[in-house]
Amino acid sequence: MSWKDKVRKVDPYVPGEQPKMTNMIKLNTNENPYPPSPLVEDQLRIMDAGQMRLYPDAEATELNAAIAAVCQVDIDQVFSGVGSDDVIDQIFLTFFTGGGKLYFPDITYSFYRVWAQLYRIDYEEIPLAEDWHIRSEDYIKGDSAQKAGIIFANPNAPTGLYENLSEVESIIAGNPDCVVVVDEAYIDYGGESAVSLINKYDNLIVVRTFSKSRAMAGMRIGFAMGNRELIKCLKDVKYSINSYTMNTTAIKLGVASRRDDEYFRKMTDRVIKTRERSKQQLTELGFEFPDSCANFIFAKHKKVAGKELFEYLRSQNIFVRRFEGDRIKDHLRITIGTDEQMDKVFDALRVYLW
Amino acid sequence: MSWKDKVRKVDPYVPGEQPKMTNMIKLNTNENPYPPSPLVEDQLRIMDAGQMRLYPDAEATELNAAIAAVCQVDIDQVFSGVGSDDVIDQIFLTFFTGGGKLYFPDITYSFYRVWAQLYRIDYEEIPLAEDWHIRSEDYIKGDSAQKAGIIFANPNAPTGLYENLSEVESIIAGNPDCVVVVDEAYIDYGGESAVSLINKYDNLIVVRTFSKSRAMAGMRIGFAMGNRELIKCLKDVKYSINSYTMNTTAIKLGVASRRDDEYFRKMTDRVIKTRERSKQQLTELGFEFPDSCANFIFAKHKKVAGKELFEYLRSQNIFVRRFEGDRIKDHLRITIGTDEQMDKVFDALRVYLW
Repeated sequence: MSWKDKVRKVDPYVPGEQPKMTNMIKLNTNENPYPPSPLVEDQLRIMDAGQMRLYPDAEATELNAAIAAVCQVDIDQVFSGVGSDDVIDQIFLTFFTGGGKLYFPDITYSFYRVWAQLYRIDYEEIPLAEDWHIRSEDYIKGDSAQKAGIIFANPNAPTGLYENLSEVESIIAGNPDCVVVVDEAYIDYGGESAVSLINKYDNLIVVRTFSKSRAMAGMRIGFAMGNRELIKCLKDVKYSINSYTMNTTAIKLGVASRRDDEYFRKMTDRVIKTRERSKQQLTELGFEFPDSCANFIFAKHKKVAGKELFEYLRSQNIFVRRFEGDRIKDHLRITIGTDEQMDKVFDALRVYLW
Repeated sequence: MSWKDKVRKVDPYVPGEQPKMTNMIKLNTNENPYPPSPLVEDQLRIMDAGQMRLYPDAEATELNAAIAAVCQVDIDQVFSGVGSDDVIDQIFLTFFTGGGKLYFPDITYSFYRVWAQLYRIDYEEIPLAEDWHIRSEDYIKGDSAQKAGIIFANPNAPTGLYENLSEVESIIAGNPDCVVVVDEAYIDYGGESAVSLINKYDNLIVVRTFSKSRAMAGMRIGFAMGNRELIKCLKDVKYSINSYTMNTTAIKLGVASRRDDEYFRKMTDRVIKTRERSKQQLTELGFEFPDSCANFIFAKHKKVAGKELFEYLRSQNIFVRRFEGDRIKDHLRITIGTDEQMDKVFDALRVYLW
């Protein structure tokens, strides 16, 4: 047996394309079309490079304090990490490896399955309803003491659909003996956050990211909010494995971004306006889609196959996302860009479809 | 069974103290006493904050290219991550979970044991010799096809001892059927790197960090070098779990640091000079220590207990590191600071010991 026989087997994952063309329209990874707050650039200009010789604050105290202030929670109700991917990975390891099955939707963020497999967590994918909604009753069945946990995204990806807070609460309340994670990567684009429930339910964790509405995907900042006890468990596991993960610039620039809520709201509103206008345009072009509350639209053309449209758009230097899978192979997930970018997309589609 | 019964059990780890006093002398986490290259600050000043809205380059191509150029290897022989902790964690997951025992010294970097436990890898700690050296023959015994792998630090921590490249090579050559990892976090402070062997042995991975000699602990940058096939395995596993980990600033500032080898060598030489002077002083003060090739000295006083000295120094606002464990509880691991800082340490010790 050579070392090659002992290498971990994985399905090689190809990260969402990050092409380096200058004249392309990049609507494939749900990035924000607008830059982060000017305060972020200001912070870059004044940062002390000399401090980089020191390890970062393992607890990211300054960042957690800034998040706590904006989200109106206590600092010890916040846990931050290297993007929400890192935060959710830690949550899986901390809370979901104690036995039982983990439940999540069949159509959702693809990494839930990956982390479950990584930590050998038994899991079951629950089909979304015909209208793409999560059926809360599916998650309430059975004794939660026997479940490893529950995770779902709200708004969900790639559907963009938001579930009402009462539905979300029924899932949390219906599973008191396992941890329920609500992944709110896209919540700023529509819907009410479950963070208002963290003091009411000791089994709830809400996850957020700076990668979408905060326009800082490049800085890798994500965070979780929950009751003190849950957050302490997360920290204990994290420190025991890798104490220093968030670098000094992520902490400092994250703080700067959090200080500028006015800019943040203005830019988020702008994306929402473009999204609503895009829904109209897509309808006129013959697309159908669930009513997105996120910064993307999951659209299927009534007549033309998804693969064909995907390839046509690509030939026009327009990059959108497409997934394999029976129910979703004809859908395109189109990130909301600027109005100018979206107009170019619709112009291109008009040329092809009309 | 409540969710609390399902939480992962860990020994809560307390990260090395990062006290926030201004008048202290911090010699407890092997940080560089000098700032990173001025080019790093220049890069901070010119960075485009607008680009942060985009995901970072998952492959960190620019950084890997800069590392490859300095280390004289090919770019596809380089894998980088969020500090060498992240890189080694990925190595454990990728290469050491295929069965058999993992071998490492009983006195070494404490996280090897943690990651082995995390991934349920069977492991055996091999005692260092009386003189604190690694006995290469201990690692060559047995059929390497039956081993999960081997990892050791060279220079080792917290001893600071360097093993000759011929010893290192005998371990690599003696275990052709398992991966051998040489953790060279401190190699720039003394000794010849095993990177010269990566084209000769397909089972060798050399790990390095920007946290010590590169004075960028705050940026969390580490990397591995090995043959193309090994590096590709690492990348496949990494992308399959968390595609985007190194943020844009880490990539850009890492590149800037790599561009200034002259400054780097000057500062490293300065630390080495201070270390050699410190050895003299410590000997005069009645300490014994293995002959360090790193940026710290692992010293035990002939008469006074380690705990007593540790606490005395702390009362003088001097922070060093002390470990529990039969053979090492009387040792202090003293990071090499500036000449001025070290003089204050020796002055304080003189007052106490004489």
